[in-house]
Amino acid sequence: MNLYDIKDPKFLKDLTIKELEALALDIRQFLIKSIEKTGGHLSSNLGTVELIIALHYVFNSPEDAMLFDVGHQAYTHKILTGRIKDFDTLRQTNGLSGYINYKESEHDLWESGHAGTALSALYGLLYAKMVKKEAGEGIAVVGDASIINGMSFEALNLLGNDSKKRGIIILNDNQMSISKSVGSLSKALTRFRSNKVVIKSKRIWQRILPEVIIRILSRIKRSVRSLLQRKNIFEDLGYMYIGPIDGHDLKGLIYNLKRIKKVKNNVVLHIITDKGKGHKDAENDIIGNYHGVSKKDKNHQAGISWSECIALGIDKLQDYKKTFVIMPAMTIGTKMSDFEKKYPDRYVDIGIAEEHGATMAGMMARQGVDIFLPLYATFSQRAFDQILNDIARSDHHVVFGIDRAGIVGEDGSTHQGLYDVSMFNLMPNMVIAMPYDAQEAFDLFYYAFMRQKHPMAIRYPRGLVSYDKTSEVIFNEIDATWKTFRKGDDSVVLISYGPSLDLLEEAREALKIDATIINARFIKPLDEEMLNTIFSKPCKVLVYEEASNIGGLYPQILKYMAKHNHHQKIVEMSITDKVVEHGHYEDMLKAVHMDVKSIKETIKDLIK
Amino acid sequence: MNLYDIKDPKFLKDLTIKELEALALDIRQFLIKSIEKTGGHLSSNLGTVELIIALHYVFNSPEDAMLFDVGHQAYTHKILTGRIKDFDTLRQTNGLSGYINYKESEHDLWESGHAGTALSALYGLLYAKMVKKEAGEGIAVVGDASIINGMSFEALNLLGNDSKKRGIIILNDNQMSISKSVGSLSKALTRFRSNKVVIKSKRIWQRILPEVIIRILSRIKRSVRSLLQRKNIFEDLGYMYIGPIDGHDLKGLIYNLKRIKKVKNNVVLHIITDKGKGHKDAENDIIGNYHGVSKKDKNHQAGISWSECIALGIDKLQDYKKTFVIMPAMTIGTKMSDFEKKYPDRYVDIGIAEEHGATMAGMMARQGVDIFLPLYATFSQRAFDQILNDIARSDHHVVFGIDRAGIVGEDGSTHQGLYDVSMFNLMPNMVIAMPYDAQEAFDLFYYAFMRQKHPMAIRYPRGLVSYDKTSEVIFNEIDATWKTFRKGDDSVVLISYGPSLDLLEEAREALKIDATIINARFIKPLDEEMLNTIFSKPCKVLVYEEASNIGGLYPQILKYMAKHNHHQKIVEMSITDKVVEHGHYEDMLKAVHMDVKSIKETIKDLIK
Repeated sequence: MNLYDIKDPKFLKDLTIKELEALALDIRQFLIKSIEKTGGHLSSNLGTVELIIALHYVFNSPEDAMLFDVGHQAYTHKILTGRIKDFDTLRQTNGLSGYINYKESEHDLWESGHAGTALSALYGLLYAKMVKKEAGEGIAVVGDASIINGMSFEALNLLGNDSKKRGIIILNDNQMSISKSVGSLSKALTRFRSNKVVIKSKRIWQRILPEVIIRILSRIKRSVRSLLQRKNIFEDLGYMYIGPIDGHDLKGLIYNLKRIKKVKNNVVLHIITDKGKGHKDAENDIIGNYHGVSKKDKNHQAGISWSECIALGIDKLQDYKKTFVIMPAMTIGTKMSDFEKKYPDRYVDIGIAEEHGATMAGMMARQGVDIFLPLYATFSQRAFDQILNDIARSDHHVVFGIDRAGIVGEDGSTHQGLYDVSMFNLMPNMVIAMPYDAQEAFDLFYYAFMRQKHPMAIRYPRGLVSYDKTSEVIFNEIDATWKTFRKGDDSVVLISYGPSLDLLEEAREALKIDATIINARFIKPLDEEMLNTIFSKPCKVLVYEEASNIGGLYPQILKYMAKHNHHQKIVEMSITDKVVEHGHYEDMLKAVHMDVKSIKETIKDLIK
Repeated sequence: MNLYDIKDPKFLKDLTIKELEALALDIRQFLIKSIEKTGGHLSSNLGTVELIIALHYVFNSPEDAMLFDVGHQAYTHKILTGRIKDFDTLRQTNGLSGYINYKESEHDLWESGHAGTALSALYGLLYAKMVKKEAGEGIAVVGDASIINGMSFEALNLLGNDSKKRGIIILNDNQMSISKSVGSLSKALTRFRSNKVVIKSKRIWQRILPEVIIRILSRIKRSVRSLLQRKNIFEDLGYMYIGPIDGHDLKGLIYNLKRIKKVKNNVVLHIITDKGKGHKDAENDIIGNYHGVSKKDKNHQAGISWSECIALGIDKLQDYKKTFVIMPAMTIGTKMSDFEKKYPDRYVDIGIAEEHGATMAGMMARQGVDIFLPLYATFSQRAFDQILNDIARSDHHVVFGIDRAGIVGEDGSTHQGLYDVSMFNLMPNMVIAMPYDAQEAFDLFYYAFMRQKHPMAIRYPRGLVSYDKTSEVIFNEIDATWKTFRKGDDSVVLISYGPSLDLLEEAREALKIDATIINARFIKPLDEEMLNTIFSKPCKVLVYEEASNIGGLYPQILKYMAKHNHHQKIVEMSITDKVVEHGHYEDMLKAVHMDVKSIKETIKDLIK
């Protein structure tokens, strides 16, 4: 069939298993071709093709609600709900979101960008259905990396004990998740997997014997099993556990989902999938390179990623100080695989467990160990309380690498790094900095580990930074001060931090004005001496932050001004109280009026 | 022995079991008398007397590190480490902390104010010991309420899988925690408890038979057991599980701790304790009234607690709108027991699981259910990411009751409610308000549920508010505007929100000035019309916030002023970048220069 004819998943009900299998093949081929062209989460989506077909075949979306944790594994769901025509625009400005998106479809019921939320959402959905006396099932598809997240457990624990609810949890176990799964639950899942053969043989005798005998045999088997076999953790938590079954066997999936439809219990269906199924490179990828595929770009930009730059710096830093790295599941994303290989004793991947990571870091720092804790800006939000209480309040020297700070582009609204500046600013004892370039990044990290005693967060954006990888990393001693990025006549002063400084310079040059540009590389504490110099003369000031400025640099400068009775004209540019959707970085910058054109207009207004 | 002679836990090693038992009795009696006098966490401390004696008898603190989750169950630890003389000052200004406190003792190794952190700290400690090649055990004492918190599970999952570490977890199961424990793990613990008899009888034959035979029998028993018996969840997660044993039987505790000392595995020792042991009222308290005991005060102040006031309002609101309450383990603290009894179908206690609660609330609100989510200000920090992403970003109408906002007094630095204003301010779509008095609280809640479509947080302090409980709750329609609290001549304007307005008025009256006082009851969005009126004339302004103002009201007013070119003199009072210790509310207010005297000085400076 032509995939482009699909408007609604209802058509599936009329297909035979053979036809469904053919459909799965078509979708898989489409995804490989399409994602190579546009970029996107390849592996996870190749793993869920049959599952999502089976779900839509057995259940009726949207009455039966399907929640995906996280939403980037749901491309097949998007195809089956009539969105294939938009795949050309996947993750692009105004194009199809790479995640579940309320605006796109009535079938999109839970926008999940951060792992571990779907089970809580499922429980909320079931409660809402009860309160509103609504029919329909609730189904959550959760990966083996998401299920070890703390809030998954909180929900698992509550739903399993609630006999008045019935939720269906599909544990999509691809035996690796973003990178290799960690922890004992992961090990337990491996144990369950060894039952695969038993389950396959069961299906054979089920086909031969009459239904009644099967039932009696099943009952006997269950009794014997309950005597002989251990309960697993899901059964301990109150769930009917089925599995593990082959997640690419459509017939088996449908058989089991139909079985589940008949019972009333809370169920965990454990399926084994090959992440990247049908795409050899992705299938063999244990460390997660194919988790997200970048669009194959011919105009390959010069430079290396900021993450890689930071990783080079941390590696070189080992000559001066042995640091310990606590990594919440982002080894590939943060380019720390080399460090992990080189210093296995000083590296631990804790999985998607940011809260645990922060508290663990606090205790290790308290014990005198130098800790590097890399966190995507958006995920650092998950450990707010732990960073505040167990690191900042008690003034433990942990160094944070806040990756993907600012607009992140294609991942969209749940992934923007807009809140970290205000969040870290709020914490006592915290030092916050952002480098303009690679050299400043090295210097800041050297300063953070060698000179600073307080907790310190160094933030850096997604994207590339100019750096020649073959050169040796050198550290310079720096002070916790701002720098003059461009010396002008001081009547107009443009203040920012990070690579945004280039945008200010571009705008200044275009306007042909002799403005001074200040690199406020330390966001906290403020460089009061520099501020004093700036505001000791009449001037007009712009503070530009690619972040929310509710608690950002701008209001802290205003506080400084108010305290010292400075009344210069000052304006701001920031991304405050705005939800930034997915799309190319430049487009999004424009959409929130933060691009060079907008800067020019703001400066023109300021100086007129 | 005289408890006041204790300087160090080493003396325990020389005592007989009988003497230890006598000591336990003495400590228990001391605690009951002492806490009735000073206030404090009575029940949990009565439950851990024998455990803590046994720990200090078998292990060597501080080389063997004892971590308590949370730190308010460690009074016996304080006594055994030589701090009994300070109990008269418990939780008072400059007195003994009610929690573990780094400054008090080298035996205090983990300041834990928020539940669920000790296992992550334990894992961090074990890693630090490994890196630093240090000897000594790591022991974490965790309650049955803390262990269901998500981050406990994250740590449990990781440590259980790490055979190079050895951690000792004491699961202190008092079968109720703060209020009744929730979830299936709690149910599973109840199942384990039924094994008590088996364990007691075991001890009898162990006493009769020779050691060799016991070992052989044990081995046979283990084999049979592994065939017949289910693994429990801790064994599934990789732990050697011992228990449950009687947590008040010193002999049993010591026997098992010594056994644990000999093995190298990660261990969970499950002990059953009576919360409130030895104090009849506390022992029979299933709903948590004795969790924290208030100091018996003869000068009983007039009024009701803010929590009770809000509970009355929410109850009355049911005449207008049926709301659903998601409660993270604080039914007693937030005075919601009556609601729970009256509307059991619209109330769920989710335990200490704030993150789960926020996401669940987001989904329920999305489905059209009106949600009230009460959170202590300090605990709301734990759900920052979930509130931001799953409620604010997606603009779901959840109403938050932010309890204990501001200085909390005796609980100390980990419990201060200083960050919620800046935290909620940072979130798109969020509305934030604080009532001045009971009537305004009712009106704000009515507004939040009946008129507002955006998520809204209403914050209120600890302490009392004037209200006659016998009168009927009445709601007035209000707008999202500020109010003139006192009309003066507008040349001096004092701005604040909440009961702090009384302090401003007190200071104004004392200074005999005709200042205007503004009740900025909506912190977000700002009342720009009112701001326009204020700043259209020359004036001097003070903004007073009993909170950190990094992202608070003051900088938002400064932003408004900068935008509209207002240059009036403006000053601020707030609790920014300060860690506030435990002590009486008034003392703490003074310590951070926020009391009436400080206000007077600030105003005098402002107008001079």
